[in-house]
Amino acid sequence: MSSSLLDRDGLRERIAAELAAFLAERAAELAEISAELDPVATTIRSFVLNGGKRLRPAFGYWGWRGAGGTATSDAAVVRALAALELVHACALIHDDVMDGSATRRGTASVHEQFADLHRSSALAGSPTGFGRAAAILIGDLTLVWADEMLAASGLPFQAVERARPAYDAMRTEVMAGQFLDVLAQVQPSVSATRALRVARYKSAKYTVERPLHVGGLLHGCSVALLDCYSEYGIPVGEAFQLRDDLLGVYGDPGVTGKPAGDDLREGKRTALIALTLEYGGAADVALVERLLGDPLLDAAGVAALREAIETSGARRRVETLIAERLEQGVSALEVGHVEPEAAAMLAELAEMSTVRRA
Amino acid sequence: MSSSLLDRDGLRERIAAELAAFLAERAAELAEISAELDPVATTIRSFVLNGGKRLRPAFGYWGWRGAGGTATSDAAVVRALAALELVHACALIHDDVMDGSATRRGTASVHEQFADLHRSSALAGSPTGFGRAAAILIGDLTLVWADEMLAASGLPFQAVERARPAYDAMRTEVMAGQFLDVLAQVQPSVSATRALRVARYKSAKYTVERPLHVGGLLHGCSVALLDCYSEYGIPVGEAFQLRDDLLGVYGDPGVTGKPAGDDLREGKRTALIALTLEYGGAADVALVERLLGDPLLDAAGVAALREAIETSGARRRVETLIAERLEQGVSALEVGHVEPEAAAMLAELAEMSTVRRA
Repeated sequence: MSSSLLDRDGLRERIAAELAAFLAERAAELAEISAELDPVATTIRSFVLNGGKRLRPAFGYWGWRGAGGTATSDAAVVRALAALELVHACALIHDDVMDGSATRRGTASVHEQFADLHRSSALAGSPTGFGRAAAILIGDLTLVWADEMLAASGLPFQAVERARPAYDAMRTEVMAGQFLDVLAQVQPSVSATRALRVARYKSAKYTVERPLHVGGLLHGCSVALLDCYSEYGIPVGEAFQLRDDLLGVYGDPGVTGKPAGDDLREGKRTALIALTLEYGGAADVALVERLLGDPLLDAAGVAALREAIETSGARRRVETLIAERLEQGVSALEVGHVEPEAAAMLAELAEMSTVRRA
Repeated sequence: MSSSLLDRDGLRERIAAELAAFLAERAAELAEISAELDPVATTIRSFVLNGGKRLRPAFGYWGWRGAGGTATSDAAVVRALAALELVHACALIHDDVMDGSATRRGTASVHEQFADLHRSSALAGSPTGFGRAAAILIGDLTLVWADEMLAASGLPFQAVERARPAYDAMRTEVMAGQFLDVLAQVQPSVSATRALRVARYKSAKYTVERPLHVGGLLHGCSVALLDCYSEYGIPVGEAFQLRDDLLGVYGDPGVTGKPAGDDLREGKRTALIALTLEYGGAADVALVERLLGDPLLDAAGVAALREAIETSGARRRVETLIAERLEQGVSALEVGHVEPEAAAMLAELAEMSTVRRA
């Protein structure tokens, strides 16, 4: 994704500055309790500040601009929307514990960092257990801090109250979507329909629709605008997840921050895999059933799976699903409810977050 | 603890009714997303409604009464304080994942319930991993729902805003205290001082001081009253944790809801254990170092450890620490800042939550 697009209005820098200031206050609070909490504060700071495209605050911001918010507004709006990045930190940190993922954003995942700390400090007990416990607690902290950052953003309470139902729905939906995903991973087979429903809750509503709603409601907006954001956000968010599924299999590790084929090793039951099993020939299906989810899958295994997915036509089908959703989402902007500059930006964001990159 | 004391003003029933109504709304929200979320809603409901002494909402309520709130007030205060019970649900559910505890409140812990569901439904993959993932997500849900319940309690926003700093501090402190506890468990040795500092954050501030502050601030109260609540709450809360440590070793499983000696099997580094190692003879110390934390510890091992703790004098020392803290806390009420009926109640609550029960 073009970072310059997400930088418009100096947004990325403003979000990072607000997060840095807020986390510095929280670090001071932890330091007052005990110096032993230093690794907690340091880890949260580097996790939140050293990575992430800030997609959710960006959609929130353009949702707010689309409702009539101006680019020169005070920092409070950016601060309120930066809270979404802390919710996301929790989702990622806990997700890595649940999946047992060793890496995130090109570095060790939080639970691995604390397992390493355990080993290097020669502590007693299990490094894995210690790492997991630390990551669960750190995720919990970022989740409650998100809430604190939104409430203390400095926006009038009426604005926060207006946005709260969308914010609350977003949090419940992402946890629900994660649960449906966990459940999908343990089914004997998963249909593309089921995988798309997971994507809707875990990604589309969480990453695009609800952040737009939060931004729109912080400014104050009509129900018509909220509906328009849904008609844009859900298909675009699904397309975004489908692109992510493709990147998980075909992506460049330098771009994704994950080892090549990591989704295949984890055995993720994505729409891409479901379509491979649905439309692939007997040999391709047998190959997928044999290799998918093998934690020791090597480069040759990854290459074989990639080819099976390709020859089954699933990759092409997913590209079609993405293109359809992109068109559907962008056309929802044409009705004219969204302020023109924001509408143009949302069309660009949709294009860039779903474009072929691998 | 006498349940009738916690029932005064019909409090337990009112808290349960508010929680039941709120959770029914959340269950409906999940059902709209997918019928597959039924086990999530059902588990949260039974976890929250079938157990718990409601200590935190009770301290919150008497903090509010102590600031001048009246017993006949509307449901909004009870609703706001019942939110503390949802924060606590998260803390317990995640704590059981971190400790690998199989039981809670006399029944299977949440992660065990979902591991069992995995087995009985013959799902793919690891039952343990599935149970852990479900419990992490369920804890996250209760944590965000707590926040939602407080914000939507129906109290004037000014009241909620006044109480929010105490509520926020409470959440950060409990996570920080849990981290310090996890860290204490992996140290080669833990002093009684260190164990008491963990108890201060994980229990005293979280269970007593901050709920009192939240209740007082919801009503509107002076800084002098907040200070008084701290002077009462911290020693009483520490005494409460010290009693809990004794119950974890000597308690009746019918009362604690945990198998006898469970804390010994988990190898918890409590003040009781620290004092045993500090003051015990060589034979007692060697026994503790050999048996503590053995997950397969049998009844004879539990009995031997109990005896070593007893003969070291640690049990008696802990009883002394409890009595000192109880006296210190209750004497803080005598200054007269707390409304008389609430002050009498807080003195009784302190007595009952730290009294010898085993």
